[in-house]
Amino acid sequence: MKSYKKELYFNTKKRYDLVHITPEVNRALKESGIKEGLCLVNAMHITASVFINDNEPGLHKDYLEWLEKLAPYSRHGYKHNVGEDNGDAHLKRQIMGREVVIAITEGKLDLGPWEEVFYGEFDGQRRKRVMIKIIGE
Amino acid sequence: MKSYKKELYFNTKKRYDLVHITPEVNRALKESGIKEGLCLVNAMHITASVFINDNEPGLHKDYLEWLEKLAPYSRHGYKHNVGEDNGDAHLKRQIMGREVVIAITEGKLDLGPWEEVFYGEFDGQRRKRVMIKIIGE
Amino acid sequence: MKSYKKELYFNTKKRYDLVHITPEVNRALKESGIKEGLCLVNAMHITASVFINDNEPGLHKDYLEWLEKLAPYSRHGYKHNVGEDNGDAHLKRQIMGREVVIAITEGKLDLGPWEEVFYGEFDGQRRKRVMIKIIGE
Repeated sequence: MKSYKKELYFNTKKRYDLVHITPEVNRALKESGIKEGLCLVNAMHITASVFINDNEPGLHKDYLEWLEKLAPYSRHGYKHNVGEDNGDAHLKRQIMGREVVIAITEGKLDLGPWEEVFYGEFDGQRRKRVMIKIIGE
Repeated sequence: MKSYKKELYFNTKKRYDLVHITPEVNRALKESGIKEGLCLVNAMHITASVFINDNEPGLHKDYLEWLEKLAPYSRHGYKHNVGEDNGDAHLKRQIMGREVVIAITEGKLDLGPWEEVFYGEFDGQRRKRVMIKIIGE
Repeated sequence: MKSYKKELYFNTKKRYDLVHITPEVNRALKESGIKEGLCLVNAMHITASVFINDNEPGLHKDYLEWLEKLAPYSRHGYKHNVGEDNGDAHLKRQIMGREVVIAITEGKLDLGPWEEVFYGEFDGQRRKRVMIKIIGE
Protein backbone atom coordinates (compact mmCIF):
# COMPACT_ATOMS: atom_id res chain seq x y z
CA MET A 1 0.00 0.00 0.00
CA LYS A 2 1.26 3.47 -0.88
CA SER A 3 0.28 6.71 0.80
CA TYR A 4 0.80 10.33 -0.14
CA LYS A 5 0.12 13.56 1.73
CA LYS A 6 -0.01 17.12 0.53
CA GLU A 7 -1.26 20.32 2.12
CA LEU A 8 -2.79 23.28 0.30
CA TYR A 9 -2.68 26.81 1.70
CA PHE A 10 -5.32 29.52 1.40
CA ASN A 11 -5.58 33.13 2.43
CA THR A 12 -8.75 34.46 0.82
CA LYS A 13 -9.27 38.16 0.28
CA LYS A 14 -12.90 37.86 1.28
CA ARG A 15 -14.27 36.61 4.56
CA TYR A 16 -16.59 34.18 2.71
CA ASP A 17 -15.36 32.51 -0.44
CA LEU A 18 -15.58 29.30 -2.47
CA VAL A 19 -12.37 28.27 -4.25
CA HIS A 20 -12.12 25.65 -7.01
CA ILE A 21 -9.39 23.13 -6.13
CA THR A 22 -9.91 20.18 -8.51
CA PRO A 23 -6.68 21.03 -10.39
CA GLU A 24 -4.65 20.94 -7.14
CA VAL A 25 -6.18 17.60 -6.15
CA ASN A 26 -5.40 16.19 -9.62
CA ARG A 27 -1.81 17.40 -9.29
CA ALA A 28 -1.42 15.70 -5.90
CA LEU A 29 -2.81 12.47 -7.35
CA LYS A 30 -0.26 12.54 -10.19
CA GLU A 31 2.55 13.19 -7.72
CA SER A 32 1.39 10.22 -5.64
CA GLY A 33 1.66 7.73 -8.50
CA ILE A 34 -1.35 5.90 -7.03
CA LYS A 35 -3.62 4.19 -9.58
CA GLU A 36 -6.33 2.55 -7.42
CA GLY A 37 -7.43 3.75 -4.02
CA LEU A 38 -9.12 6.53 -2.07
CA CYS A 39 -8.36 10.23 -1.84
CA LEU A 40 -9.39 12.19 1.27
CA VAL A 41 -9.56 15.97 0.98
CA ASN A 42 -10.45 17.82 4.19
CA ALA A 43 -10.36 21.28 5.67
CA MET A 44 -7.88 21.41 8.55
CA HIS A 45 -9.73 24.36 10.08
CA ILE A 46 -13.10 24.23 11.74
CA THR A 47 -14.59 27.28 10.05
CA ALA A 48 -14.01 25.94 6.54
CA SER A 49 -15.28 23.12 4.30
CA VAL A 50 -14.24 20.92 1.44
CA PHE A 51 -17.18 19.90 -0.72
CA ILE A 52 -18.05 18.71 -4.21
CA ASN A 53 -20.55 20.48 -6.41
CA ASP A 54 -20.89 22.52 -9.58
CA ASN A 55 -18.33 25.07 -10.80
CA GLU A 56 -21.00 27.67 -11.56
CA PRO A 57 -20.79 31.21 -10.14
CA GLY A 58 -24.58 31.68 -9.83
CA LEU A 59 -24.82 28.57 -7.68
CA HIS A 60 -21.93 29.75 -5.50
CA LYS A 61 -23.81 32.98 -4.77
CA ASP A 62 -26.87 30.88 -3.95
CA TYR A 63 -24.82 28.81 -1.50
CA LEU A 64 -23.44 31.83 0.35
CA GLU A 65 -26.87 33.54 0.56
CA TRP A 66 -28.52 30.33 1.72
CA LEU A 67 -25.89 29.66 4.38
CA GLU A 68 -26.33 33.21 5.62
CA LYS A 69 -30.05 32.50 6.06
CA LEU A 70 -29.55 29.18 7.85
CA ALA A 71 -26.66 30.37 10.03
CA PRO A 72 -26.45 34.17 9.97
CA TYR A 73 -23.41 36.18 10.97
CA SER A 74 -23.89 37.77 14.36
CA ARG A 75 -21.34 39.74 16.33
CA HIS A 76 -22.88 39.01 19.72
CA GLY A 77 -25.56 36.42 19.00
CA TYR A 78 -23.50 33.27 19.57
CA LYS A 79 -22.15 31.96 22.86
CA HIS A 80 -18.96 31.08 20.98
CA ASN A 81 -18.35 34.74 20.20
CA VAL A 82 -16.50 35.73 23.33
CA GLY A 83 -13.54 37.53 21.87
CA GLU A 84 -14.41 36.15 18.44
CA ASP A 85 -17.15 36.78 15.93
CA ASN A 86 -16.99 33.64 13.81
CA GLY A 87 -19.73 31.58 15.48
CA ASP A 88 -21.66 31.53 12.21
CA ALA A 89 -18.68 30.04 10.37
CA HIS A 90 -18.64 26.96 12.65
CA LEU A 91 -22.32 26.36 11.80
CA LYS A 92 -21.99 27.05 8.07
CA ARG A 93 -19.15 24.56 7.84
CA GLN A 94 -21.34 21.77 9.28
CA ILE A 95 -23.90 22.29 6.50
CA MET A 96 -21.26 22.16 3.76
CA GLY A 97 -19.17 19.42 5.41
CA ARG A 98 -15.53 19.02 6.44
CA GLU A 99 -14.31 16.55 3.85
CA VAL A 100 -14.81 14.51 0.71
CA VAL A 101 -13.56 11.04 -0.12
CA ILE A 102 -13.00 10.42 -3.83
CA ALA A 103 -12.45 7.09 -5.58
CA ILE A 104 -9.24 6.73 -7.62
CA THR A 105 -9.56 4.49 -10.65
CA GLU A 106 -6.90 3.92 -13.30
CA GLY A 107 -4.86 6.82 -11.96
CA LYS A 108 -7.68 9.36 -12.10
CA LEU A 109 -10.11 10.99 -9.68
CA ASP A 110 -13.26 9.00 -10.44
CA LEU A 111 -15.70 11.93 -10.47
CA GLY A 112 -19.08 12.32 -12.15
CA PRO A 113 -19.48 14.64 -15.16
CA TRP A 114 -20.13 17.84 -13.18
CA GLU A 115 -18.36 17.02 -9.94
CA GLU A 116 -15.70 19.59 -8.97
CA VAL A 117 -13.91 19.97 -5.63
CA PHE A 118 -14.14 23.23 -3.68
CA TYR A 119 -12.66 24.82 -0.61
CA GLY A 120 -15.36 26.69 1.31
CA GLU A 121 -14.05 29.53 3.42
CA PHE A 122 -16.37 31.07 6.04
CA ASP A 123 -13.83 32.99 8.14
CA GLY A 124 -11.08 33.98 5.74
CA GLN A 125 -8.51 36.72 5.39
CA ARG A 126 -6.04 34.55 7.28
CA ARG A 127 -3.79 31.60 6.38
CA LYS A 128 -5.57 28.25 6.39
CA ARG A 129 -4.88 24.71 5.25
CA VAL A 130 -6.44 21.78 3.41
CA MET A 131 -5.15 18.19 3.66
CA ILE A 132 -4.97 15.79 0.74
CA LYS A 133 -4.26 12.19 1.76
CA ILE A 134 -4.20 9.44 -0.84
CA ILE A 135 -3.85 5.73 -0.11
CA GLY A 136 -3.80 2.83 -2.54
CA GLU A 137 -1.51 1.17 -5.05
CA MET B 1 -4.43 -4.33 -1.51
CA LYS B 2 -7.47 -5.11 -3.64
CA SER B 3 -9.89 -2.61 -5.10
CA TYR B 4 -13.28 -3.00 -6.72
CA LYS B 5 -15.54 -0.52 -8.51
CA LYS B 6 -19.15 -0.73 -9.47
CA GLU B 7 -21.65 1.86 -10.68
CA LEU B 8 -25.38 1.85 -10.01
CA TYR B 9 -27.87 3.55 -12.31
CA PHE B 10 -31.09 5.33 -11.37
CA ASN B 11 -33.90 6.98 -13.27
CA THR B 12 -36.55 7.80 -10.70
CA LYS B 13 -40.17 8.35 -11.73
CA LYS B 14 -40.48 11.20 -9.25
CA ARG B 15 -38.43 14.38 -9.14
CA TYR B 16 -37.69 13.81 -5.42
CA ASP B 17 -37.18 10.29 -4.17
CA LEU B 18 -35.25 8.22 -1.62
CA VAL B 19 -34.19 4.75 -2.80
CA HIS B 20 -32.95 1.93 -0.55
CA ILE B 21 -29.65 0.57 -1.92
CA THR B 22 -28.18 -1.55 0.90
CA PRO B 23 -28.80 -4.76 -1.10
CA GLU B 24 -26.86 -3.39 -4.09
CA VAL B 25 -23.96 -2.33 -1.87
CA ASN B 26 -23.92 -5.79 -0.25
CA ARG B 27 -23.86 -7.39 -3.68
CA ALA B 28 -20.91 -5.26 -4.78
CA LEU B 29 -19.05 -6.20 -1.59
CA LYS B 30 -19.56 -9.91 -2.28
CA GLU B 31 -18.36 -9.47 -5.86
CA SER B 32 -15.24 -7.71 -4.59
CA GLY B 33 -14.15 -10.58 -2.36
CA ILE B 34 -12.78 -8.00 0.09
CA LYS B 35 -12.94 -9.02 3.78
CA GLU B 36 -11.37 -6.05 5.59
CA GLY B 37 -11.34 -2.47 4.34
CA LEU B 38 -13.43 0.56 3.50
CA CYS B 39 -16.36 1.00 1.14
CA LEU B 40 -17.10 4.41 -0.38
CA VAL B 41 -20.57 4.98 -1.83
CA ASN B 42 -21.13 8.38 -3.44
CA ALA B 43 -23.53 10.14 -5.73
CA MET B 44 -21.79 11.02 -9.02
CA HIS B 45 -24.28 13.84 -9.63
CA ILE B 46 -24.41 17.10 -7.75
CA THR B 47 -28.16 17.18 -7.22
CA ALA B 48 -28.24 13.81 -5.43
CA SER B 49 -27.03 12.26 -2.18
CA VAL B 50 -25.97 8.99 -0.67
CA PHE B 51 -26.76 8.80 3.03
CA ILE B 52 -27.37 6.32 5.83
CA ASN B 53 -30.48 6.36 7.95
CA ASP B 54 -33.65 4.42 8.76
CA ASN B 55 -35.67 2.44 6.20
CA GLU B 56 -38.97 3.87 7.44
CA PRO B 57 -41.44 5.52 5.02
CA GLY B 58 -42.74 8.06 7.57
CA LEU B 59 -39.23 9.33 8.17
CA HIS B 60 -38.61 9.59 4.43
CA LYS B 61 -41.63 11.85 4.08
CA ASP B 62 -40.31 13.91 6.99
CA TYR B 63 -36.96 14.27 5.23
CA LEU B 64 -38.48 15.49 1.98
CA GLU B 65 -40.80 17.97 3.73
CA TRP B 66 -37.98 19.24 5.92
CA LEU B 67 -35.60 19.70 2.98
CA GLU B 68 -38.33 21.60 1.14
CA LYS B 69 -38.55 23.98 4.12
CA LEU B 70 -34.78 24.49 4.42
CA ALA B 71 -34.15 24.74 0.66
CA PRO B 72 -37.44 25.29 -1.17
CA TYR B 73 -37.96 24.69 -4.86
CA SER B 74 -38.10 27.96 -6.77
CA ARG B 75 -38.33 28.39 -10.52
CA HIS B 76 -36.74 31.85 -10.55
CA GLY B 77 -35.50 32.35 -7.00
CA TYR B 78 -31.97 31.02 -7.43
CA LYS B 79 -29.12 32.60 -9.37
CA HIS B 80 -28.26 29.09 -10.57
CA ASN B 81 -31.60 28.79 -12.32
CA VAL B 82 -30.69 30.38 -15.63
CA GLY B 83 -32.06 27.83 -18.05
CA GLU B 84 -32.47 25.37 -15.17
CA ASP B 85 -34.80 25.09 -12.21
CA ASN B 86 -32.85 22.73 -9.95
CA GLY B 87 -31.12 25.26 -7.68
CA ASP B 88 -32.93 23.78 -4.69
CA ALA B 89 -31.55 20.32 -5.46
CA HIS B 90 -27.94 21.54 -5.13
CA LEU B 91 -28.76 22.89 -1.66
CA LYS B 92 -30.77 19.87 -0.53
CA ARG B 93 -27.91 17.58 -1.48
CA GLN B 94 -25.49 19.48 0.79
CA ILE B 95 -27.77 18.86 3.80
CA MET B 96 -28.04 15.13 3.09
CA GLY B 97 -24.42 14.72 1.96
CA ARG B 98 -22.65 13.34 -1.12
CA GLU B 99 -21.22 10.12 0.24
CA VAL B 100 -20.84 7.55 2.98
CA VAL B 101 -17.79 5.52 3.97
CA ILE B 102 -18.61 2.14 5.51
CA ALA B 103 -16.25 -0.18 7.40
CA ILE B 104 -15.88 -3.72 6.04
CA THR B 105 -15.23 -6.36 8.68
CA GLU B 106 -15.10 -10.13 8.12
CA GLY B 107 -16.52 -9.69 4.63
CA LYS B 108 -19.57 -7.71 5.72
CA LEU B 109 -20.69 -4.07 5.73
CA ASP B 110 -20.11 -3.20 9.38
CA LEU B 111 -23.35 -1.27 9.95
CA GLY B 112 -25.28 -0.56 13.14
CA PRO B 113 -28.63 -2.28 13.78
CA TRP B 114 -30.80 0.27 11.93
CA GLU B 115 -28.29 1.65 9.45
CA GLU B 116 -29.41 1.34 5.82
CA VAL B 117 -27.92 3.02 2.75
CA PHE B 118 -30.05 5.31 0.56
CA TYR B 119 -29.79 7.17 -2.69
CA GLY B 120 -31.38 10.61 -2.35
CA GLU B 121 -32.66 12.04 -5.61
CA PHE B 122 -33.57 15.74 -5.73
CA ASP B 123 -33.71 16.27 -9.49
CA GLY B 124 -34.80 12.97 -10.93
CA GLN B 125 -36.64 11.70 -13.97
CA ARG B 126 -33.31 11.36 -15.76
CA ARG B 127 -30.49 8.80 -15.76
CA LYS B 128 -28.03 9.23 -12.88
CA ARG B 129 -25.21 7.25 -11.31
CA VAL B 130 -23.81 6.16 -7.94
CA MET B 131 -20.22 4.95 -7.43
CA ILE B 132 -19.26 2.08 -5.14
CA LYS B 133 -15.51 1.81 -4.55
CA ILE B 134 -14.14 -0.79 -2.15
CA ILE B 135 -10.52 -1.10 -1.08
CA GLY B 136 -8.96 -3.59 1.30
CA GLU B 137 -7.90 -7.22 1.44
CA MET C 1 -2.45 -3.75 4.54
CA LYS C 2 -3.45 -3.81 8.19
CA SER C 3 -6.89 -3.09 9.58
CA TYR C 4 -8.14 -2.47 13.09
CA LYS C 5 -11.62 -2.13 14.53
CA LYS C 6 -12.81 -0.81 17.84
CA GLU C 7 -16.24 0.16 19.15
CA LEU C 8 -16.98 2.87 21.71
CA TYR C 9 -20.07 2.82 23.91
CA PHE C 10 -22.13 5.74 25.14
CA ASN C 11 -25.10 6.18 27.42
CA THR C 12 -25.49 9.92 27.91
CA LYS C 13 -27.37 11.31 30.90
CA LYS C 14 -28.96 13.97 28.72
CA ARG C 15 -31.11 13.46 25.67
CA TYR C 16 -28.92 15.87 23.67
CA ASP C 17 -25.20 15.90 24.28
CA LEU C 18 -21.84 16.43 22.57
CA VAL C 19 -19.00 14.23 23.86
CA HIS C 20 -15.29 14.77 23.15
CA ILE C 21 -13.77 11.52 21.85
CA THR C 22 -10.37 12.50 20.39
CA PRO C 23 -8.54 10.68 23.23
CA GLU C 24 -10.42 7.44 22.50
CA VAL C 25 -9.65 7.69 18.77
CA ASN C 26 -5.98 8.32 19.55
CA ARG C 27 -5.94 5.27 21.82
CA ALA C 28 -7.44 3.08 19.09
CA LEU C 29 -4.83 4.34 16.62
CA LYS C 30 -1.99 3.41 19.00
CA GLU C 31 -3.51 -0.04 19.53
CA SER C 32 -3.69 -0.53 15.76
CA GLY C 33 0.02 0.08 15.20
CA ILE C 34 -0.87 1.70 11.85
CA LYS C 35 1.45 4.51 10.74
CA GLU C 36 0.03 5.60 7.37
CA GLY C 37 -3.59 5.24 6.32
CA LEU C 38 -7.15 6.36 6.94
CA CYS C 39 -9.28 6.29 10.08
CA LEU C 40 -13.07 6.14 9.80
CA VAL C 41 -15.09 7.13 12.86
CA ASN C 42 -18.88 6.80 12.50
CA ALA C 43 -21.99 6.71 14.60
CA MET C 44 -23.61 3.26 14.38
CA HIS C 45 -27.00 4.73 15.28
CA ILE C 46 -29.13 6.90 13.05
CA THR C 47 -30.00 9.53 15.64
CA ALA C 48 -26.36 10.36 16.41
CA SER C 49 -23.36 11.94 14.70
CA VAL C 50 -19.60 11.92 14.68
CA PHE C 51 -18.16 15.28 13.67
CA ILE C 52 -15.03 17.38 13.98
CA ASN C 53 -15.05 20.90 15.37
CA ASP C 54 -13.89 23.00 18.30
CA ASN C 55 -13.75 21.78 21.91
CA GLU C 56 -15.39 24.94 23.23
CA PRO C 57 -18.49 24.78 25.48
CA GLY C 58 -20.03 28.03 24.18
CA LEU C 59 -19.94 26.70 20.64
CA HIS C 60 -21.50 23.43 21.74
CA LYS C 61 -24.45 25.32 23.20
CA ASP C 62 -24.70 27.24 19.93
CA TYR C 63 -24.83 23.96 18.01
CA LEU C 64 -27.62 22.49 20.11
CA GLU C 65 -29.71 25.69 19.98
CA TRP C 66 -29.17 26.02 16.23
CA LEU C 67 -30.10 22.40 15.56
CA GLU C 68 -33.25 22.88 17.63
CA LYS C 69 -34.18 25.81 15.35
CA LEU C 70 -33.49 23.95 12.11
CA ALA C 71 -35.05 20.66 13.24
CA PRO C 72 -37.17 21.21 16.35
CA TYR C 73 -38.27 18.48 18.71
CA SER C 74 -41.93 17.66 18.22
CA ARG C 75 -43.90 14.92 19.92
CA HIS C 76 -46.50 14.60 17.17
CA GLY C 77 -45.14 16.78 14.36
CA TYR C 78 -43.20 14.12 12.44
CA LYS C 79 -44.60 11.23 10.44
CA HIS C 80 -41.78 9.14 11.89
CA ASN C 81 -43.13 9.63 15.39
CA VAL C 82 -45.60 6.78 15.51
CA GLY C 83 -44.73 5.17 18.81
CA GLU C 84 -41.51 7.25 18.92
CA ASP C 85 -40.73 10.87 19.47
CA ASN C 86 -37.23 11.11 18.00
CA GLY C 87 -38.05 12.38 14.50
CA ASP C 88 -36.05 15.52 15.18
CA ALA C 89 -32.95 13.47 16.03
CA HIS C 90 -32.91 11.85 12.57
CA LEU C 91 -32.91 15.33 11.01
CA LYS C 92 -30.36 16.84 13.37
CA ARG C 93 -27.96 14.01 12.65
CA GLN C 94 -28.05 14.75 8.90
CA ILE C 95 -26.91 18.33 9.55
CA MET C 96 -24.01 17.24 11.76
CA GLY C 97 -23.12 14.16 9.69
CA ARG C 98 -22.68 10.45 10.37
CA GLU C 99 -18.94 10.09 10.09
CA VAL C 100 -15.48 11.56 9.71
CA VAL C 101 -12.47 10.20 7.85
CA ILE C 102 -9.12 11.26 9.28
CA ALA C 103 -5.69 10.96 7.66
CA ILE C 104 -3.05 9.01 9.59
CA THR C 105 0.51 10.24 9.07
CA GLU C 106 3.59 9.01 10.92
CA GLY C 107 1.42 7.15 13.42
CA LYS C 108 -0.72 10.16 14.35
CA LEU C 109 -4.19 11.49 13.56
CA ASP C 110 -3.32 14.21 11.07
CA LEU C 111 -5.65 16.90 12.41
CA GLY C 112 -5.51 20.68 12.12
CA PRO C 113 -4.65 22.81 15.17
CA TRP C 114 -8.21 23.09 16.54
CA GLU C 115 -9.73 19.93 15.13
CA GLU C 116 -11.24 17.65 17.78
CA VAL C 117 -13.54 14.65 17.29
CA PHE C 118 -17.00 14.58 18.89
CA TYR C 119 -19.87 12.19 19.34
CA GLY C 120 -23.16 14.03 18.86
CA GLU C 121 -26.08 12.46 20.69
CA PHE C 122 -29.61 13.59 19.76
CA ASP C 123 -31.64 10.79 21.36
CA GLY C 124 -29.64 9.66 24.34
CA GLN C 125 -30.25 8.08 27.72
CA ARG C 126 -29.77 4.67 26.14
CA ARG C 127 -26.74 2.56 25.13
CA LYS C 128 -25.31 3.48 21.73
CA ARG C 129 -22.18 2.73 19.73
CA VAL C 130 -19.49 4.38 17.62
CA MET C 131 -17.25 2.48 15.18
CA ILE C 132 -13.55 3.19 14.69
CA LYS C 133 -12.07 1.43 11.65
CA ILE C 134 -8.46 2.05 10.67
CA ILE C 135 -6.76 0.74 7.54
CA GLY C 136 -3.20 1.27 6.39
CA GLU C 137 0.32 0.08 7.14
